[in-house]
Amino acid sequence: MSDILILSEDQLRECVDLDLAAIEVVENAFATLADGGVVMPPVLSMHMPDVNGELDVKTAYVPGLPGFAVKLSPGFFDNPSKGLPSTSGLMVLLSSETGRVSAVLLDNGYLTDLRTAAAGGVAARNLAREDARRAAIFGAGLQARMQLRSLALVRPIEEAVIWARDNAKAQAMAEEMTAAGISCKASADPAEAAAFADVIVTTTPASKPILQADWLCPGQHVTAMGSDQAGKNELDPHCLDRADLYVADRVSQTRLMGELRAALETGVLTDADDIPELGNIITGRHPGRTGPEQITIADLTGTGVQDTAIATHALAAFSKDQ
Amino acid sequence: MSDILILSEDQLRECVDLDLAAIEVVENAFATLADGGVVMPPVLSMHMPDVNGELDVKTAYVPGLPGFAVKLSPGFFDNPSKGLPSTSGLMVLLSSETGRVSAVLLDNGYLTDLRTAAAGGVAARNLAREDARRAAIFGAGLQARMQLRSLALVRPIEEAVIWARDNAKAQAMAEEMTAAGISCKASADPAEAAAFADVIVTTTPASKPILQADWLCPGQHVTAMGSDQAGKNELDPHCLDRADLYVADRVSQTRLMGELRAALETGVLTDADDIPELGNIITGRHPGRTGPEQITIADLTGTGVQDTAIATHALAAFSKDQ
Repeated sequence: MSDILILSEDQLRECVDLDLAAIEVVENAFATLADGGVVMPPVLSMHMPDVNGELDVKTAYVPGLPGFAVKLSPGFFDNPSKGLPSTSGLMVLLSSETGRVSAVLLDNGYLTDLRTAAAGGVAARNLAREDARRAAIFGAGLQARMQLRSLALVRPIEEAVIWARDNAKAQAMAEEMTAAGISCKASADPAEAAAFADVIVTTTPASKPILQADWLCPGQHVTAMGSDQAGKNELDPHCLDRADLYVADRVSQTRLMGELRAALETGVLTDADDIPELGNIITGRHPGRTGPEQITIADLTGTGVQDTAIATHALAAFSKDQ
Repeated sequence: MSDILILSEDQLRECVDLDLAAIEVVENAFATLADGGVVMPPVLSMHMPDVNGELDVKTAYVPGLPGFAVKLSPGFFDNPSKGLPSTSGLMVLLSSETGRVSAVLLDNGYLTDLRTAAAGGVAARNLAREDARRAAIFGAGLQARMQLRSLALVRPIEEAVIWARDNAKAQAMAEEMTAAGISCKASADPAEAAAFADVIVTTTPASKPILQADWLCPGQHVTAMGSDQAGKNELDPHCLDRADLYVADRVSQTRLMGELRAALETGVLTDADDIPELGNIITGRHPGRTGPEQITIADLTGTGVQDTAIATHALAAFSKDQ
């Protein structure tokens, strides 16, 4: 037991935060995924309807990294009524050399929040216009806040507008983020919020589209990061048709649980064969955005390679602090 | 962190062992699986060929139990040359009420060894003749020893013969088990070993059959527990044809990674629709063995429900000791 490092959520929060280093670690992970050699099996999903719960297990082996992570993400949706967050979980880091457990990161989902927000930063850094100054955030939860912070790390964001189904929550978030240094206001009109922005980030668990295709304007980039289950859908499928470029974090996942799923199911898209992945843009295999008037979309469902990257990053940061 | 119990392998070895209580816990788990309501997703498997490693993740939700386990089983096959066992891993126990992590069992595979051996005991208790006195064990590793111990807990075993590819290992095991109270000898002839026994247990990672169909004798029970990957195969597929009763731990698994796979692939069996599962015998939904001259086979690939059962059992035993 003595050679297994066990870190609490507090210890992890002290040693890793959402910053450019985290974004770069996740960006490198996507690049390695595109380069090949990464082994990333399909997500293990377990649904427990009688307790309104679900569990996702993700993992990825990245050659060259000293370890690989296995992440357990439970979501128990009656928890808020018990005063607990819906999501929690942990990551286990295993040695790439021996398979033995090297660390247990009792993060309660903190590292997932971090790598998810970091992926949003990676998407914007590789797809949004370099002069993107205005953001629209759909949703007003924790990821809404973190996605805005991540975006502001990679683009010169001056203003943001927040739309949420519950306008009071959008206002609370706008006040909070303004106090934190990013000038924000809430909007009760999602079309108005969309029209305002150079970058739109959707962060909701919506099961019906909250962003319509005819709201999109030339030059915009959209990151849709809320869908991670087959029942979820944030973008009007016609957004994918309208965009000049649609990029998946992992096509095999977005076709099952991302915005691509709805676009294929409704027949808006008929073929997912030539869709580039984020890693292809990062490594330059695909040119990405080729003009300031193009509309780009990144569809993020969350990948095991991000978990392995952030777990390795956290362990390195902790070891450096010691 | 303070509310998460972390137990080391030593602590777990102190509080749970291979005994009738462990066999009963696993038997109940199989019964619950047959009763329905258990959620058990397919195994997540990741192969890492460049480091000669693999990882399996298993889980199952059993309604009524306070928690559910997720088990990480890495197998790194260059470890022995580094003086380390090939397999290791841990189990995480999560609350069935909130999904939050309640315990991390750093067992290095001990609980897997235990629940695997216990399942062998369950199979023999439900399928072997009550008067079974002679055992043949194929293989001379840790599971060979544990399967023999488990068998002796449920049947009046007086003598055992051990066959292994390496006869020196079979002899070492025979001496060790004899010293531990079960009279054993080694045999260099697998046909002779098979002919000797009322119960045969195969415990090897063989990829080609080590037990031939024409060696089987009336009244025998065979438990094949070595195959847990599509490439493994211990029984001549005609054994399944010859047997009066073939029972799977989980048909959906044995058809992919058990002895059933080879029988279907070679065309010896053409249909897996009416195959009973171990739980059906335990609950009496299927009559099981109906005569002393019948040949029965149990095909055990290992199930997440066993992991949840043994993890819950270990945690209860530890708490009782405190």
